Amino acid sequence: MLHFADRLCAAVASKGSALCVGLDPRWDSLPLEIRERYGGDSCSAVASAFEEFCCRIVEVVEPLVAVVKPQMAFFEACGPPGFAALQRVIAKARGRGLLVVLDGKRNDIASVASAYADAALAGTPLGTGRRPVWDADALTVNPYLGRDAVEPFLESARRAGRGVYVLVRTSNPGARQFQDLECGGRPLYAHVAEAIRDWTGENVGASGYGDVGAVVGATYPAELAVLRAALPEVPFLVPGFGAQGGGAAEVYPAFRDDGHGAIVNSSRGILYEYSPDTRDWEAAVERATLDTIRILPRPGTPQ
Amino acid sequence: MLHFADRLCAAVASKGSALCVGLDPRWDSLPLEIRERYGGDSCSAVASAFEEFCCRIVEVVEPLVAVVKPQMAFFEACGPPGFAALQRVIAKARGRGLLVVLDGKRNDIASVASAYADAALAGTPLGTGRRPVWDADALTVNPYLGRDAVEPFLESARRAGRGVYVLVRTSNPGARQFQDLECGGRPLYAHVAEAIRDWTGENVGASGYGDVGAVVGATYPAELAVLRAALPEVPFLVPGFGAQGGGAAEVYPAFRDDGHGAIVNSSRGILYEYSPDTRDWEAAVERATLDTIRILPRPGTPQ
Repeated sequence: MLHFADRLCAAVASKGSALCVGLDPRWDSLPLEIRERYGGDSCSAVASAFEEFCCRIVEVVEPLVAVVKPQMAFFEACGPPGFAALQRVIAKARGRGLLVVLDGKRNDIASVASAYADAALAGTPLGTGRRPVWDADALTVNPYLGRDAVEPFLESARRAGRGVYVLVRTSNPGARQFQDLECGGRPLYAHVAEAIRDWTGENVGASGYGDVGAVVGATYPAELAVLRAALPEVPFLVPGFGAQGGGAAEVYPAFRDDGHGAIVNSSRGILYEYSPDTRDWEAAVERATLDTIRILPRPGTPQ
Repeated sequence: MLHFADRLCAAVASKGSALCVGLDPRWDSLPLEIRERYGGDSCSAVASAFEEFCCRIVEVVEPLVAVVKPQMAFFEACGPPGFAALQRVIAKARGRGLLVVLDGKRNDIASVASAYADAALAGTPLGTGRRPVWDADALTVNPYLGRDAVEPFLESARRAGRGVYVLVRTSNPGARQFQDLECGGRPLYAHVAEAIRDWTGENVGASGYGDVGAVVGATYPAELAVLRAALPEVPFLVPGFGAQGGGAAEVYPAFRDDGHGAIVNSSRGILYEYSPDTRDWEAAVERATLDTIRILPRPGTPQ
């Protein structure tokens, strides 16, 4: 089974872009033609609208990008039909050859964390085998509980050639409150980053990257540069580009000299850059994707 | 609409116990008679078994305790049918007058966090109103992302007289790795605790407690005592009792002098204290519940 980082690097190189498209279905932002058809008065109606919207986004971006990142919260907001829609969106994306980073920011104590991990990565143990539940290529994980709570995610990921992205420096304005607290001369997030460096070092692929990545927001470019230098083998997932304020200059420090080492997520900046009553919204999504790709580093090109 | 802490204190006083029963359905631990009937070869079969088991637990413990705490991870591991089972377990518990603390340890940046929060607490906005998805009385929340990411949970909770429990000191052995890092002379978890003290101070009920609680593990009794003294208005949720090693002496410091101020969770120590082939496992659950109640502080009784 191929190593997660090797699959990621190959996919990014083949598409020639490190852009990751965030699948954040927000009812109030959906194209009007979809909202009108589904109504929106029940969880199942909204879930079906989310599914159609995300599947059509997948079709538009599939020739252009290597990775999509569904945001679990929006599907969870619709309850069971939302999760059924999420399963079908992930299956659609993987069927089209896209890698799927599932954004759940999950964690709990170890004996519980393994349930989250297997659901997302190796599959839930059932009878004599395992059954994929979300079947993602990677999952985002929260580090607050410490090493023993993160390890079930590594174990599940490694059983199936998948990956884990651990939150280091999130993209929100309040991230500094706890993540920047100085602990022994270094901010908290640097301690988390060191733990990730060790975890990823346990399983480095042929690409030179490990299977434990770091989430580092585009909204904090100085931290991004320091972390990139300190964690050469760690693949980065960089949210906060576009709508949250990070621009092209802010994300360049996330990349190594060969243009690899990071994927940059944009959600609202790709999905909703048109008036809701636009009929041909897919053309607008394609344009926004191409415009974003143009300003990001090209993988394999020395920066 | 009644304040969360007032409802909690009244329910605990009326049952005469601060025990919270954790609903952690683990397939390999379920009574054999249930496993045999459902098989366990599909997500729906396991989800149905989890639902029957948890609903029967609710019936056994309802006369004895005020609060149950379903663990989302085990339901998530079964995908959409697991979540449908979770909805019915919560409805059953609330229908019996129990308070439900949903253990999801959710969080994300604010514009996403509100989707998690509304799903669990105030209800997802749909059409002209809100639709309860999980309909819990409180949700556990991870603080790593900082204040702006926690605030959507407070807002959703306050809209509906619900509560939030923020992780401070988790019960797992690895909790010390990040939570104990010294930041400006105090460990990280003390900084989180101070933020919770401020949040809860914004909305204190007639009971003298606020609607933002703290998760503090029974496995760290010294920290529990310090935090209790520092956060008089903060309701505690104390996991780690029983199977994880915390005993009665360890949890006493979580209570204020009147025996209020904390609920103590036990999951495995209540659910699985019998041989799997026991036919009358409900009697064993009832005995374990009564035995646990006997050694915990009695609410309203000076300690």
